[in-house]
This record gives sequence, structure tokens and C-alpha cells, in this order.
Amino acid sequence: MQTEPLGLHHVFERAEAVFADREVTGREPGGVRGLDYAELFAGARGLAEDLEGLGLRPGDRVATYAWNTLDHMRAYIAIPGAGMVMHTVNIRLGADEVAYTLAHAGDRAVLVDGALWESWSAVDLPDTVEHVLVMGEAPDLPAVQGGAAVHRLETRPVPERRGWWRPRDENEAVGICYTSGTTGRPKAVVYSHRSVYLHALTLCGTDAFAIGHHDVVLPVVPMFHANAWNLPYAGLVAGAGLAFPGRHLDPLGLTGFIRDSRATFAAGVPTVWAAVVRALHEGRAPGDALATMDRIVIGGSSAPESLLDALTGLGIRPVHAWGMTECSPVGLVASEPCTPDGAVRSAARRTQGRPLPGLAVRSSAEGREAARDGAAVGELEISGPFVVDHYHAPEKDDSASFTASPDGRRWLRTGDMVTVDARGYVTLVDRAKDMVKSGGEWISSVDLENRLAAHPRVNETAVIAVPDEVWGERPVAVLSSTDGEPLDPDELRSFLGAQIPRWQLPDRFVVVDEVPKTGVGKFDKKRMRAEYGHGR
Amino acid sequence: MQTEPLGLHHVFERAEAVFADREVTGREPGGVRGLDYAELFAGARGLAEDLEGLGLRPGDRVATYAWNTLDHMRAYIAIPGAGMVMHTVNIRLGADEVAYTLAHAGDRAVLVDGALWESWSAVDLPDTVEHVLVMGEAPDLPAVQGGAAVHRLETRPVPERRGWWRPRDENEAVGICYTSGTTGRPKAVVYSHRSVYLHALTLCGTDAFAIGHHDVVLPVVPMFHANAWNLPYAGLVAGAGLAFPGRHLDPLGLTGFIRDSRATFAAGVPTVWAAVVRALHEGRAPGDALATMDRIVIGGSSAPESLLDALTGLGIRPVHAWGMTECSPVGLVASEPCTPDGAVRSAARRTQGRPLPGLAVRSSAEGREAARDGAAVGELEISGPFVVDHYHAPEKDDSASFTASPDGRRWLRTGDMVTVDARGYVTLVDRAKDMVKSGGEWISSVDLENRLAAHPRVNETAVIAVPDEVWGERPVAVLSSTDGEPLDPDELRSFLGAQIPRWQLPDRFVVVDEVPKTGVGKFDKKRMRAEYGHGR
Repeated sequence: MQTEPLGLHHVFERAEAVFADREVTGREPGGVRGLDYAELFAGARGLAEDLEGLGLRPGDRVATYAWNTLDHMRAYIAIPGAGMVMHTVNIRLGADEVAYTLAHAGDRAVLVDGALWESWSAVDLPDTVEHVLVMGEAPDLPAVQGGAAVHRLETRPVPERRGWWRPRDENEAVGICYTSGTTGRPKAVVYSHRSVYLHALTLCGTDAFAIGHHDVVLPVVPMFHANAWNLPYAGLVAGAGLAFPGRHLDPLGLTGFIRDSRATFAAGVPTVWAAVVRALHEGRAPGDALATMDRIVIGGSSAPESLLDALTGLGIRPVHAWGMTECSPVGLVASEPCTPDGAVRSAARRTQGRPLPGLAVRSSAEGREAARDGAAVGELEISGPFVVDHYHAPEKDDSASFTASPDGRRWLRTGDMVTVDARGYVTLVDRAKDMVKSGGEWISSVDLENRLAAHPRVNETAVIAVPDEVWGERPVAVLSSTDGEPLDPDELRSFLGAQIPRWQLPDRFVVVDEVPKTGVGKFDKKRMRAEYGHGR
Repeated sequence: MQTEPLGLHHVFERAEAVFADREVTGREPGGVRGLDYAELFAGARGLAEDLEGLGLRPGDRVATYAWNTLDHMRAYIAIPGAGMVMHTVNIRLGADEVAYTLAHAGDRAVLVDGALWESWSAVDLPDTVEHVLVMGEAPDLPAVQGGAAVHRLETRPVPERRGWWRPRDENEAVGICYTSGTTGRPKAVVYSHRSVYLHALTLCGTDAFAIGHHDVVLPVVPMFHANAWNLPYAGLVAGAGLAFPGRHLDPLGLTGFIRDSRATFAAGVPTVWAAVVRALHEGRAPGDALATMDRIVIGGSSAPESLLDALTGLGIRPVHAWGMTECSPVGLVASEPCTPDGAVRSAARRTQGRPLPGLAVRSSAEGREAARDGAAVGELEISGPFVVDHYHAPEKDDSASFTASPDGRRWLRTGDMVTVDARGYVTLVDRAKDMVKSGGEWISSVDLENRLAAHPRVNETAVIAVPDEVWGERPVAVLSSTDGEPLDPDELRSFLGAQIPRWQLPDRFVVVDEVPKTGVGKFDKKRMRAEYGHGR
């Protein structure tokens, strides 16, 4: 058999040869703009030539700092298409952390979204950066930023097709993402042509995301976070329509763009969809806004049952998924088991899911694999061709993040405490560091959060462990209400008390305007522990 | 990223870990038998141990000679699962050709379907074969066949899981298939762990065969021909139900088993489906026999429009596909383009399709790529990670079968004359050697066949080129009628004459009881040219 390297060159060339008239939509400052694959790729080719014109060469690292835009998508093609390595900088990081990742990656150039110029200009650029290229509308720009020349980029279509960069070795680096570490510096995960190709192809599978040519894929999850779950490349493999919402991720902006782009498939974190559902229920968004939507993938953190039910009620199939930057990023998808038992099917949909083709999972407790009985709790470990092998140039020894099997397989330790059942469904019990150990017994903060989320007046909730002299640790719930009015702790206590043992009830219910979140929209438990973890 | 080898070990281990309770059905002499993946794999593990007990080792070649049965499926797992190389012998080959392929592959053992003992026992075994293992019910067996010991195999379940053979190099051989060459000896195509994995994963894609966990996959295409289009392994990737019809491929046997197995997905050559449709229309098969069927893949040769329409009329989505043993074997699938124009969608469904992810195609005429305009005719060339790189130990130099690009890509010359359009749809004009060159102009035998197939009384038809002193070559049609009654050549001539120019009309219409076919069910044009190609 041919040993043709797996890689994005193939995805790009096939997309141009086969899907030239498929549509791509973007919400831009002037309104919604549409173009086809032929125009998208022509623009990407112009961008690739612009980068080469600045002296950038294959292997050079080129960063992006942008919302989900057509310009960003062009960069997703142009950078790897020119053989360079794309570093998608998380715009939610602080300026010093951005500078750290730019220096760590050794970026020679950065493509900056003009709409983000203000936060970008606060970054103290490391010496590696020679060029800053500003995309889209932007304010007056300086000629230089630190030691880098600042250029204004225009879209310059080059319609004549020629081959995209074909890696000699499919394990060649194609992208870098940094994990949003809750402790220490962000860690670098380097994707290869092979891993991106395999992951994108796998996402198109029927029981994965089933992305097809007739879909219109709308990544709500940011392109600066784990490459928007690899949806841009999976979309190109399928020849799907693509829709880029820009910065308009509020419920009204999003529902309006879903209607304009006729999106059939979207993916994002639970909080985004909870807000959309609320806006629909309250009549703030038009009732038919999601009429074209077929399925919505929810991941990034565990989705409350109530959200899954609400989407189902809207005629949308919710797909629960689990991933992390280290897994390219999607690892588990909660597709339904083939059984006539509706309760079993429904329960399976609410788990984190089972491993995608290519991946193996196990749960480890005290150095052994825990039973696959849906009850034994262990740390989730994962292995496969699109799982990280090692962090790139880690700040400190990363060997504790991996274990090895005698057969040579390498396993990533995910830090998630889970059960695994006989059908391979993984259920998240907690992040290892978020488990509450009270009087020697574990309390799952995820379980408490899911139960509280089902309360009609609870908007968002996070449960944290706080030190306790008697019990070691005790749970505390931080909550916001749907209507901004106060919540009654006694009422919440009796709501929960009807469902779980008394000793598992949170000691306190802290009601806040908004539950604190990290740069990528996850609950910031570190900050909450610091803020609400002491005294009463 | 991890460099975990792609391979069947992974498919098997995941299938056991995740899909243990999924069902597998087989039609056996005693009736329809059902078991689950756990039992299937336990039996395969027993078979693997039996092979090892006979002294067989990783890298050894082990052949199969069997119908589509549960036993054959066990062998599909046990042989590669023990690190051996599976050679699926085409039972339609003559005894001397079987002996040739056994010797060429260097098979040390052969698993023989007891139901095929009679034809098998006529094979003069080469010295390489040490063991003949007979599966299923069989007549009295001799102790030896040639120099080989004959064993009767019992299914021996070994339920305790242990890892399957994990290739150190994913390019390691996993299977051998021989092409049914119309000239010269069959040629050997060696599949690798990597190619089989990639092809099976790709078939599960939404716009490929969309095989999922909830499907029941029924391979009508034989497991001794291009590994049943790789459906057994694609089914295991998806965790689909599997259904094995045994030898009962007549319309009544097949429709009965489709009903028993509740198959949702089947694949086979056009002649099989034409016979099934006829049996339904004539009331010989029960009207609801295909009620569970969702889609049927038709390939192996070009399907007439009338067949695609008949399946659509039954509520089944016909999927037209193109492949060859050299492409693992599926290369093109005629999924619909995303356009509101119904005529364009419908026309696309009737083409051979467009390249699967991973593959590139082009049509070459006189050393250059022909225009992608849907009109220019050239020879189809195909390239990608599950396309053959070279034939294994070819009888004669095989370099004429391949061309190379300056970028290092290798292209297989398929021998099919095609057009390619702007959306990448490939339309078969003819096999290069089946084109009729009349007075310097090409006549497409496929086009004539398709038009004749639309005649209500024509059952099967093949058009061949016969030598002609005046024109060089002229077309001759060989036909059978649906009702066994004679067809009127004049009536056929005026039927065609209303559609095409006079000079393209066949010179003769030879009406036969059955149009001659090769071992794999394709029209045997070589034989027809010998039989009907001379004089009037």
C-alpha cells in the first residue's frame, strides 16, 4: 500500500478539487458575508504568499490572535498550507501569559484580529516576533510594536491552484495549542499532520459528530481554544458549509447568526447553550431561530441534564462529548448504545461518552485498572494516535502526566475521576482536584452541580471544596439565579436534601451575580476557592 | 502526538471493550444463528490459539476458502489478530489458479468451508501448505490432502480477553487479495494494518457508507473477493450488527435472510440487486422483505439507472460506488452534491462518485491531466494511503500500472476510461479495453449497456467490441430477456435508434439464456469476445 503521508495538504487539495462551490459564511462588522470554498482557498493562497514574502519559511511558527472569523479560517489554511506551524493564541490569557506562549513557541509572526487590537497592543512582544499582521477592520496602527513591524493585511485572492505543503513526514508539527493550566505556566501540545488528519476524519464518523457535506458547521467554541475542537478541518474533510460567528456569542447574536447561516451543527460549552435556551424560553430570541439546527455538541465541561432535555425539546439532538487539548481535543462522544431499553439509551446520552475509533481508555486506581462496572472510581487514562505523547519543552518534568504499558503503549493521565461501564461509557465523577473529601468519604462536586442545575431558578452553579477542621473538606456551592433575584439557601438545602444524604449537602450556598469563569469559559474553581473558601 | 500504530489490533480491542453485546447473525445449515461480539471474539481467540498450536507464527500466511459465514468472520479476526497474514482465496477461481495463488502467497495453512469441500478437494496443494482446517459441517474427510494434514475445526470459545497482535510497524502486511485478471495470472495486492484501518474508518464517514453502531451490515459481496469491500472491519469499527448470508445469495434466500437479520445496510454487485428487485416486483419474494433496509451500496460494475430508480421506489437509498481490489477496495462514492438543483443531485447519484477522504483522482490522456469538465475522456488514475503501491512479486514487470508525480506521489492506472467534472464526480465511460473504436471514433459499451438495460424486457446485457474489416471494431450486444422469451433485434435497434446516432448502434444482438460472467459475477467479456466475436 502507498505510504502517502496523512496531512492537511490532502484535505485542502481535495476540498478545492471536489467542493469548490460549497459555501462559507462569516459575521463581519459590515454584516453577514458569504463566499465559496474556491474564494476561501484563493484568499488563503494569497495569505500564504504574503507570509512567504515576509521571509517566513516551512517550519516557522506563526501565531493567530483572533475571534472565529473568515480571516481566521484563511489563516487555518494558509499557515499549515505553507508548511508553517500554527499557534492559536488564547485571547483570554493575560498579556504576560500571551507573551510567555509567543516566546515559548518561538513565533516569528502573529496574525491579529483588528477587533482585538486593544488587548493585543498590551502584549510586550518577545524578540522572536518579527511581524505583526493585522486582519480586518482595525484602528490606526503604529509602524512597529516592540521589535516587530506592523502590517495591515488585505485579502488578496490567488485563484490559480497549486499544491499545498506536503509533509515529508506525517508526524511533522502542524500546530501548537497551550493548555489553560490552573497551576503553573500553560503547557504546549504540538499537533502533527497525522494527528489532525486522523482526528478530523474520525469526527466525520456516523457515531462521532457525523459531519457531512450537507451540514453547515458553526463552531461556537473558539478557534483560539484547542483549534475549535478541530471542527474547521473536519468541516473541510466533509466539504461542509462553515459558519463563523465572530465575536457575537451572546444569545441574541448567536441565534441571529444561526438563522442567517442556516447552521445545522454547532458545538460549544454548556453555559453558551444554557443562555441560548433561556433566551428562547423567555421569548428574547425568535422561536424559529434554531429551526435549521440538527444537533449540538456540548463539551468542555459536564452538561446538566436539564440542558440536554431542553435541547431535545427544541427538536435538536444534543451530543455530549468530552475532550481536552491533549486529545486533539475530542476523545469521548456519548452516542447511544444499540438496545431497545430507552432508559439505558437515555442514561448513556448523559455520560461523557465512549472512546472514538483509534482511542483506548481505562480508569486507574492505585496503579491498577479499575473494574468496568460503572461503579469503581479511578483516574481516566487515554491512549491513541491523536493523544499527546509528551508536552513540548515543558517547564518542569512532565513524566507524572503519563504512564506506560508493558506493550509500549503510552497513556495520558487526564486528572478526571471517572467510572467506566461494560459498554465503555465513561462518567465523570469529578476533576481529581475538585473532589471533596469529607470525613474520609468522597463527595462529587459534579453530581451536586448537576442536581442544583435542575432547580428552576438556578442559572449556573459550581461546587468547591473548602478546608474544614472537623471533616477535612466540606462542599460549598456558588450559584447565580436565572432572574437576578436572591436564592433562598434553606429552600435549596431542602431541594437537594430530598435527593442525597445529609452529609453530602453543601455547608453554604454563596449566591453571586455571575459564577467566576476562566479565560476559556470554564468555572474558575481556583479563584472561587480563594474567594469563598475561608470562614462563613 | 503518540505514534501508536494504526491497525486491526485496535479495532478488535475497542470492539470487545465497547460493543460486547452487539449482535452478529449467520445463516447456517441448521437455520439462522445469533451471537454477540463477546462470543464472536471468544471464538476467534480460540481459533487464534488453535493456529498457534499448529506451530503457525506471526507473519505466516493463512488462507481462507469460504462463503460469507460466521466461521469466516471468526477467521477475519483470528488470523490478523494472531499477527498472521490472511489470504482470502476466491472460490470462483479454477483449481489450478487456486493452487497458483496458494503457492504465490506461500500459505502455510488454509481454513476451508466444509460446504465447499468438493471444489476444494480438487485443488492440487502446493508444498507450502502444511495444514487444512475444515470449518462447519463437512462430509467425511481424509487424513491428508497432498502433503497437508487435514483437521476438523470446532469452535472453541476463549472468553478471557488478552491483547491482539499489535504490529510494530503499521505498514506490516495484514492481508493478501488476488485480482481477477482477465489476462495472465492473478496479481497479488497486499493490504497493511494501516491501509485496512484507514479504509474501514473512512467507510464509516457520513458521506461514504455512514456505517454506524445502529446499522446491521449485510455483506452480499463475497468475503473471498476484496475482503467483502472491507465491510467486516468497517462494521467492527462502528460496532454495527453483522449478518452473514452464507451461500444463499439467490433472491429468495437473500430477501428471507434480510428479514431475519433485520439488515439495514447491504452491498453487492448490480446483478444481485436486479434479481432481488425482480423477485419483489413479481411477487416471488414477500413485499415487506426489505422493510428494515435503509441503503444499499451497488458496485463492482456500473449500475443501470433503472435499478437505482427501482430501489428508490422501494424506499431504499441506493449508493453507487466504485472500487477495485487495488483500492482496498472502495475508492469513489456517489454521494449527493449540496445544491438545490434536483436534476444535478440526481445525475450525480448515477455517476461512479467522487473520491473518499484520503484519495486523489485524475484522468489522464496522452500523458496530461484531462480537463475536469465532465466531457474530456481519460484514464482514471488514483492515489492515496489505501491504494496499492506495487503488486506483490508480480509475474511480469508492473511498472506500466503506475505513474509518478514530481512531488513523489504514486498513481495507480485503473484502466477505466472516465470523465471527471468540476465537483470531482467520475463517470465511467468504459474499461479501456472494452471501448469500441469504430472508424476512429470511440463508442462506449457502458453507455449502450445502460440504455439497453432500460428496455422493459431486457434482463442483462453486455456490449463487446468485435473486429471489423471496414471500421476496425464494431459493437455487438449480448443480451438475456426477463421472461426467457426471444427478443426482437429490430425492435431493440429502433428502441436504441431513437436515442443515439445510427453509427453507434450494435451490429448484432445476440440473445442468450444467461450473459456469461466471471468468477466474481462481472460480465466475462473476454469469453464473449471469443464466443461471439467472429462472423455473423
